[in-house]
Amino acid sequence: MAKKDGGRKRGEPVLRDVLRIPGGEPIDLGAYDSRATPAGPTGKAAGLAATAGLGPRLAGLQERLYAASTAGDRRRLLLVLQGMDTSGKGGTVKHVIGLFNPSGCRIHAFKAPTREERNHPFLWRVMRVLPQPGEIGIFDRSHYEDVLIARVRDLAPRREIARRYGQINRFEKSLAEDGVTVVKVFLHLSYEEQRARLLERLDNPDKHWKFNPGDIEERALWPAYRQAYERVLERCSTDAAPWYLVPADRKWYRNWAISKLLLEHLEALDPKYPPGDFDVEESRARLLAS
Amino acid sequence: MAKKDGGRKRGEPVLRDVLRIPGGEPIDLGAYDSRATPAGPTGKAAGLAATAGLGPRLAGLQERLYAASTAGDRRRLLLVLQGMDTSGKGGTVKHVIGLFNPSGCRIHAFKAPTREERNHPFLWRVMRVLPQPGEIGIFDRSHYEDVLIARVRDLAPRREIARRYGQINRFEKSLAEDGVTVVKVFLHLSYEEQRARLLERLDNPDKHWKFNPGDIEERALWPAYRQAYERVLERCSTDAAPWYLVPADRKWYRNWAISKLLLEHLEALDPKYPPGDFDVEESRARLLAS
Repeated sequence: MAKKDGGRKRGEPVLRDVLRIPGGEPIDLGAYDSRATPAGPTGKAAGLAATAGLGPRLAGLQERLYAASTAGDRRRLLLVLQGMDTSGKGGTVKHVIGLFNPSGCRIHAFKAPTREERNHPFLWRVMRVLPQPGEIGIFDRSHYEDVLIARVRDLAPRREIARRYGQINRFEKSLAEDGVTVVKVFLHLSYEEQRARLLERLDNPDKHWKFNPGDIEERALWPAYRQAYERVLERCSTDAAPWYLVPADRKWYRNWAISKLLLEHLEALDPKYPPGDFDVEESRARLLAS
Repeated sequence: MAKKDGGRKRGEPVLRDVLRIPGGEPIDLGAYDSRATPAGPTGKAAGLAATAGLGPRLAGLQERLYAASTAGDRRRLLLVLQGMDTSGKGGTVKHVIGLFNPSGCRIHAFKAPTREERNHPFLWRVMRVLPQPGEIGIFDRSHYEDVLIARVRDLAPRREIARRYGQINRFEKSLAEDGVTVVKVFLHLSYEEQRARLLERLDNPDKHWKFNPGDIEERALWPAYRQAYERVLERCSTDAAPWYLVPADRKWYRNWAISKLLLEHLEALDPKYPPGDFDVEESRARLLAS
């Protein structure tokens, strides 16, 4: 039963408020516990059950969002997933986006840019895969790679990278003005948990295909990546498109938190089934006669 | 436990053989019962349970297919869904494709062609949205519309439409040669069940957005569509890409049958997790030291 407050129990915190990065001020990721459960379920069994319980509500809101788009509502949602290797971007798509109707999801995993993509402004390839009205878009990595790996690996001149923060903010503001609810999630993983997850891939031959020795070299750059992420969270958590920090060491919590974040955003949109623009009784009579 | 025969019980028929349209000979759709359950579960509760039970096996095979593609295996699967309005193309995507990991599914719903698409050969827009190696592609409608509605509505000269059957067969043969397992499903719905489903949409204001009075006009062309489908099944059920006829009046049976068809095809592909091409012990040592 959806209540006006989105079905929250009295006193239950709004997760958006709990996880939101304020932006505009320096941030120290070391101050955030990647194993924390800052709101919601505190144990695995309860977490899994809570996430499964959100499924029907998410799918229902998604259907209404899509239905509204058929009558001209341009609103849509874009989930941006960023985080270190093994932080669970792919797992989120599988377990959280798997709760939705796949036909309304537009998923894109960004890889190293192709030659054609590099010949265009860095936002070009992003524009091409945006969700359409009524859809849920999901970015597994995103334009933020152009201020993350690009910064850590010196893939572009410093001055150019410095300009990109502002370009990203203006781009996302335009998206918001056009009806896109941008939900940016940083999956906050600890250095130790990453080691454990990479070792797990080595221990299981069925997971060797997921392992790349290059991941160990990237791991050596952890401090530089952390600094790059801190800068992103400081510069690009805006009112139009805030960043949310999700503790990601516990997979069940990560899945619950992102499901709940999406639910809160979809409930705030409150999409409506559009009325038909036809004569119901006339159509019924014609159908019965057919 | 997967057995060599794909986990079938002794004597259980291969659904592919049961539902396959032979091709090359005239077909009378009136001879096929759209409420039949020609193999598998015969009741709704058992059908729903059986479909849910296939989910983990489907997702597991999908992961292996994707994993294999990272080591150069080009194989992929393309599910083509065709059927009259309300026959359940969208429902299949929701309930069957919803069993897979959404990140490996490439879904495309074909609408009336745009001006740009009409200016190209009719297969042009199809080529652009094919699944890539390791992916499951899903077409909700397809290039077959160009010999279905195009024939019924005279959208192209007769001679041109007559040529398309051969063009489709050659196209699909090329796909098969390139590693695409093409699974074409005709959702066989009765005229009476379509009326019931359209009435259901009228009865529920939350479903009015799905109703278009134009659907009643299309329904008046039922005999012409049926003939067009009969021609497709006769001309285009080939060894490279056979058509399967799925009785679609019972939604639970439709979902089970398509899930099972996909399972049989994926089991026949039998994709393997690729071995790693790196030194596991060396990587483990470097990780533990990091």
